[in-house]
Amino acid sequence: MFLETTFSKGKAFPAFSVGGKNPDYTGHVKSYRKELWFEVPARRAFVNITGQVRQCLLESKISEGLALVNAMHITASVFINDDESGLHHDYEVWLEKLAPHEPLSDYRHNLTGEDNADAHIKRQVMGREVVVAITNGRLDFGPWEQIFYGEFDGGRRKRVLVKIIGE
Amino acid sequence: MFLETTFSKGKAFPAFSVGGKNPDYTGHVKSYRKELWFEVPARRAFVNITGQVRQCLLESKISEGLALVNAMHITASVFINDDESGLHHDYEVWLEKLAPHEPLSDYRHNLTGEDNADAHIKRQVMGREVVVAITNGRLDFGPWEQIFYGEFDGGRRKRVLVKIIGE
Amino acid sequence: MFLETTFSKGKAFPAFSVGGKNPDYTGHVKSYRKELWFEVPARRAFVNITGQVRQCLLESKISEGLALVNAMHITASVFINDDESGLHHDYEVWLEKLAPHEPLSDYRHNLTGEDNADAHIKRQVMGREVVVAITNGRLDFGPWEQIFYGEFDGGRRKRVLVKIIGE
Repeated sequence: MFLETTFSKGKAFPAFSVGGKNPDYTGHVKSYRKELWFEVPARRAFVNITGQVRQCLLESKISEGLALVNAMHITASVFINDDESGLHHDYEVWLEKLAPHEPLSDYRHNLTGEDNADAHIKRQVMGREVVVAITNGRLDFGPWEQIFYGEFDGGRRKRVLVKIIGE
Repeated sequence: MFLETTFSKGKAFPAFSVGGKNPDYTGHVKSYRKELWFEVPARRAFVNITGQVRQCLLESKISEGLALVNAMHITASVFINDDESGLHHDYEVWLEKLAPHEPLSDYRHNLTGEDNADAHIKRQVMGREVVVAITNGRLDFGPWEQIFYGEFDGGRRKRVLVKIIGE
Repeated sequence: MFLETTFSKGKAFPAFSVGGKNPDYTGHVKSYRKELWFEVPARRAFVNITGQVRQCLLESKISEGLALVNAMHITASVFINDDESGLHHDYEVWLEKLAPHEPLSDYRHNLTGEDNADAHIKRQVMGREVVVAITNGRLDFGPWEQIFYGEFDGGRRKRVLVKIIGE
């Protein structure tokens, strides 16, 4: 499911000089980037991605910092909550009541030929992104926190971005 | 629309010493700050600010890091979604149904003399802020991501903060 | 209410070398971590934690960066809005209408023996976290921004994480 990883230890720092030398060292802020790809067959689903984000953190070798995890698509969410199937059912029912998929004609966006106006709304409610503290090389989580990808317009390949900065 | 910019390359780093010298270099984490000002004539509107945030990033000369973009007012949002006028209409209709502006007397907050209780609620639904990854000097976006200022109580000058850190 | 603080000035930076020496200096990105603990007697309440976060910032000695403030529990929120009791009443009424606590049997999650499905939903609406810019050693806020802990399933000890990175 992983596709692309970019490591960066930063750029050379030209302003630094000792005794006329510019030592060739490589910067100050460590950064890491990876895209996670998903293809959810159903229109809507919640996928626990905590393990994949944890794997990214291991690869990053960053021990103190912040991790941003965001949907790169605007009909999907990344959020943190409980990994309990009853709750996910409740979210699904509640969101569908709040912004029903049908009738499609209730949404002007669907005049563009899309049928996903409800998905754009559901994603706003559940959120685009989470920012997670990194402490001692670990996701700094409370006891029940789990990261989910929320798909509201599935059936095609979509991405989540993991970007970690720190050192 | 831009008002104030503050660049920072960080403070001198006193703990560092080679051969008794403290080389005069300037820090480790780059940061950049700018306020974007808006005066939306209508009570409610969505304004695409992606170009302005991109301009901030260019000015910052930061190539790897995180950009925070947040409303500085509590009746406005910053969010990421699609630049499609039908969808914006759908958001407007949906939010107005979810937390109607009138009757004003439905909200205790309006007893303070304000008429914007609904705007405080709408802003919570749409969100205060976005955090965007910066990679290779660019906003690290999926194909349709655009940043919007969401105004829910317009008719006066209000601000968005852009803060970028990294290197 | 404070329990645990961790300071970090980062790790030694082994790649750096001048004239064969590895000077023993301590890194590039400053980080700070503290947990704020709460025990709200009521099921639901909003607690202004701005002063506590400001105190964390003072302790951190970080002047430029980002502060993440997040609920560590999945039935609680951290959000930024107005410190006005009428508005808090309006939030309470609106959230209870949007996702009522009762009847408990309306939620499949409550079949697990919990009675807090509504709290998981309310927390999603109000948000898990805020990210705040740090500028010149201060929370970089608009005129009315205040940080709140939103409790939706009280009566027990719960935590908020404050993580600040920068320099």
